[in-house]
Amino acid sequence: MEIIEDGGEVLLYLDGRRTYLVRVEPERLFHTHKGYLNLGELIGKPYGSSIKSSLGIKFYALKPLIRDRIHKSARRTQILYPKDIGYLLVKIGIGPGCRVVEAGTGSGALTCALANAVKPDGRVYSYDVRPELQRVAAGNIERAGLRSYVELKIGDITERIDEEELDAVVLDMATPWLVVPIAHRALKGGGVFASFSPTIEQVMKTASSLRKQPFVEVETVELIMRRINVEENRTRPETLMIGHSGYITTARKVLD
Amino acid sequence: MEIIEDGGEVLLYLDGRRTYLVRVEPERLFHTHKGYLNLGELIGKPYGSSIKSSLGIKFYALKPLIRDRIHKSARRTQILYPKDIGYLLVKIGIGPGCRVVEAGTGSGALTCALANAVKPDGRVYSYDVRPELQRVAAGNIERAGLRSYVELKIGDITERIDEEELDAVVLDMATPWLVVPIAHRALKGGGVFASFSPTIEQVMKTASSLRKQPFVEVETVELIMRRINVEENRTRPETLMIGHSGYITTARKVLD
Amino acid sequence: MEIIEDGGEVLLYLDGRRTYLVRVEPERLFHTHKGYLNLGELIGKPYGSSIKSSLGIKFYALKPLIRDRIHKSARRTQILYPKDIGYLLVKIGIGPGCRVVEAGTGSGALTCALANAVKPDGRVYSYDVRPELQRVAAGNIERAGLRSYVELKIGDITERIDEEELDAVVLDMATPWLVVPIAHRALKGGGVFASFSPTIEQVMKTASSLRKQPFVEVETVELIMRRINVEENRTRPETLMIGHSGYITTARKVLD
Amino acid sequence: MEIIEDGGEVLLYLDGRRTYLVRVEPERLFHTHKGYLNLGELIGKPYGSSIKSSLGIKFYALKPLIRDRIHKSARRTQILYPKDIGYLLVKIGIGPGCRVVEAGTGSGALTCALANAVKPDGRVYSYDVRPELQRVAAGNIERAGLRSYVELKIGDITERIDEEELDAVVLDMATPWLVVPIAHRALKGGGVFASFSPTIEQVMKTASSLRKQPFVEVETVELIMRRINVEENRTRPETLMIGHSGYITTARKVLD
Repeated sequence: MEIIEDGGEVLLYLDGRRTYLVRVEPERLFHTHKGYLNLGELIGKPYGSSIKSSLGIKFYALKPLIRDRIHKSARRTQILYPKDIGYLLVKIGIGPGCRVVEAGTGSGALTCALANAVKPDGRVYSYDVRPELQRVAAGNIERAGLRSYVELKIGDITERIDEEELDAVVLDMATPWLVVPIAHRALKGGGVFASFSPTIEQVMKTASSLRKQPFVEVETVELIMRRINVEENRTRPETLMIGHSGYITTARKVLD
Repeated sequence: MEIIEDGGEVLLYLDGRRTYLVRVEPERLFHTHKGYLNLGELIGKPYGSSIKSSLGIKFYALKPLIRDRIHKSARRTQILYPKDIGYLLVKIGIGPGCRVVEAGTGSGALTCALANAVKPDGRVYSYDVRPELQRVAAGNIERAGLRSYVELKIGDITERIDEEELDAVVLDMATPWLVVPIAHRALKGGGVFASFSPTIEQVMKTASSLRKQPFVEVETVELIMRRINVEENRTRPETLMIGHSGYITTARKVLD
Repeated sequence: MEIIEDGGEVLLYLDGRRTYLVRVEPERLFHTHKGYLNLGELIGKPYGSSIKSSLGIKFYALKPLIRDRIHKSARRTQILYPKDIGYLLVKIGIGPGCRVVEAGTGSGALTCALANAVKPDGRVYSYDVRPELQRVAAGNIERAGLRSYVELKIGDITERIDEEELDAVVLDMATPWLVVPIAHRALKGGGVFASFSPTIEQVMKTASSLRKQPFVEVETVELIMRRINVEENRTRPETLMIGHSGYITTARKVLD
Repeated sequence: MEIIEDGGEVLLYLDGRRTYLVRVEPERLFHTHKGYLNLGELIGKPYGSSIKSSLGIKFYALKPLIRDRIHKSARRTQILYPKDIGYLLVKIGIGPGCRVVEAGTGSGALTCALANAVKPDGRVYSYDVRPELQRVAAGNIERAGLRSYVELKIGDITERIDEEELDAVVLDMATPWLVVPIAHRALKGGGVFASFSPTIEQVMKTASSLRKQPFVEVETVELIMRRINVEENRTRPETLMIGHSGYITTARKVLD
């Protein structure tokens, strides 16, 4: 049974819309509009346990998953959803031991998902030109316990990729098409290029650039996620939904 | 540089619609409508290399990814697409070291994706009542190099799950709602239940059953994937598409 | 050239999100946060003309279309969008001279669309059990200039339809399945039944009821509308969209 | 009660996938793979009646709706679906008495829908450069009983529109952006421009051209239609669907 430890993080769950990612320490109080919680009470209890606030409201203490961290960081810098990250992971086909370059680092959400997939013996090299963003990302990655699988690099990926023989290059940046020739050189034979872009003009330029290099299986898809409200006699897709996050373009390097 | 070895598998790529998963051996011939290939020529070359058929047509030899195996096995038994598998993986939040129960085994496509995510020190326990299907799955999992991370079990999961303190229970079967109480017992606190179902009636019964047990974050979503045809002055979503594969219902166990 | 007359209505257009449906009269002032407009200035000008507010902001005076009235009334009582109304009109196949029963009247939005389609010699019989709603609807229909083609009836359509040999029966109400046998009797041979329902349970009951009567072409569809933001280098589907309004179920009566 | 007459057309309905649009005449035989029907038997019977084939299979004789004609003609020349036509009709807001220009005529499917909406005192002017297509369209429009509301014109609409003060200009052609300035001149103030285009490049050029003229409410949408299979314990969206037909761009003329 997995026990909540002093210094560990838990996801406090109140209801479907309200969750809080907090660090558990003795005597540490966490204040909510439903009263305060003494987080120290959780130490030694198994994940999934409940804790009551000073107003008698029950919260559950869940073990944070990568998706919880993505969700929390996404609130600020937007863009990559679990549907897109999941599809990217399957398309680039990485697993433990793989070496991946990513750009930009952003909030580190995708970085965490990639690091979780390649650990314990793989590595993620994450490029960004914005040092201030990478500092935020470093904290997020550290808290996710994935810091030792990630190398954060300040640099412009449109100018160079230091690594070679990579399993995948994953881009979430404004000008992915500028990276295509550099990514081709850095990938191993059969390695996967993947790019996430909100606009169709970015996709057009990226696909065009991919077709000029030795890549095969150049594909663009878009994933639309609908939440279904499942309640007796009221079952229906949700009224308001995210209509678009972005397009995912992928390709595989060949040697020619 | 990763080299194609004698006895290894490659994905032969002809074009976007025609790929072939084959074993490379000296003097082995592979016949296609574009002429035959001498697969032995590939031994010692890096993945991504090309090979010409007897009619001079070029094929590329890619390293098979899990998604290629999913794609190949999906052709026969249908149902789980990369979009759904990727989303499931992110929602259940597994990584190296996790322990997961799956049912049914089916062709082993999802089993491979799960095993790839939990290796090298995690484990997938895959239940199915159909021994003949598990034999096919065993071959697919073996060829993917993931056999040692998977325990195939002949048994009816609606009656029992042998394992305890699981990180996740993943169902792709006709009557997931019958498994809900058993899955709750087998999961650890905070562990994730996930079920994939084609029909809305299955979803209704499963969601109703989940609400009767101590689960939180009970959610149902549907993912719609559109391929975009990106070509100069002809860019548009594809005319014919897969409109529906299934609904994904997830929940997290709490202790009460 | 069509001229704006004293007493006529215009749709004042400020921008894509702000339009106002107003009556034009001499010296009548219309106040907005962009200053006030003297609506009397519009009398005698052609539709499409501009008018400046007291703060010098330009508004355009458009001739109100049925869809503008739908949009304005929909804000209050929700539900039927142009996409759904348009599809309904094509499916029921009505034109000038047709006789249609509708229930419930609601805000009169669908009533206007139906009346516009059957005028000048057809007729819409609109049932509702809520007299207060029909009073609102009567005003909306009057302002649209369609009052003489509509008969508003206070009554419970699940109990009776007074008319016979109808071209179509169109339902936007909570329990359409209760109307199916009554609708069958009231339709002429080949006449079309159409029902709009937000939930899948309503659809299931309605489809089941239709299959027990002599109806053919029993079909249910759902229309999803995406707005596309078309701007140079920023072209993409809108981020937030209406994910679901309702399902449309249609069938054609046969004689047996 | 509406009676089938000698010389009239009926839609023979066998099942959801098989319908036939035929002319009823005494002694006329219609051969199907389910045996032949003596169509003369239908004369004098009400629409909706059944007729048995020589093999004892029952067919229903429905009165053809405009959508049946659209469906039948669409099989050959593709493109406009009821969902798109319905939305177009609501957006252009036409009704009896309106004057509309359309290009190209194509098979006459949209022409029929427009003519049905503007009859008895409106008029559709339909331009096409292909005389051979217009001959086919003329037959379709004639059979729909709408010939007297339509003026078919051989001519290149990118060069001129003869009419003035139009309520709407509706385009289903390869280069709609070339028509934008001409359409603006031909529309009355507040008149609606509408264009249907399969590719996003067409949409980009058309929207850009609309923004250079005095138009307001420039909008592009896409409608996605899902058929729902409603059957007890098997309810779900259909597996294979039409993923894309085209984008609809609309705008309203203002005077400046």
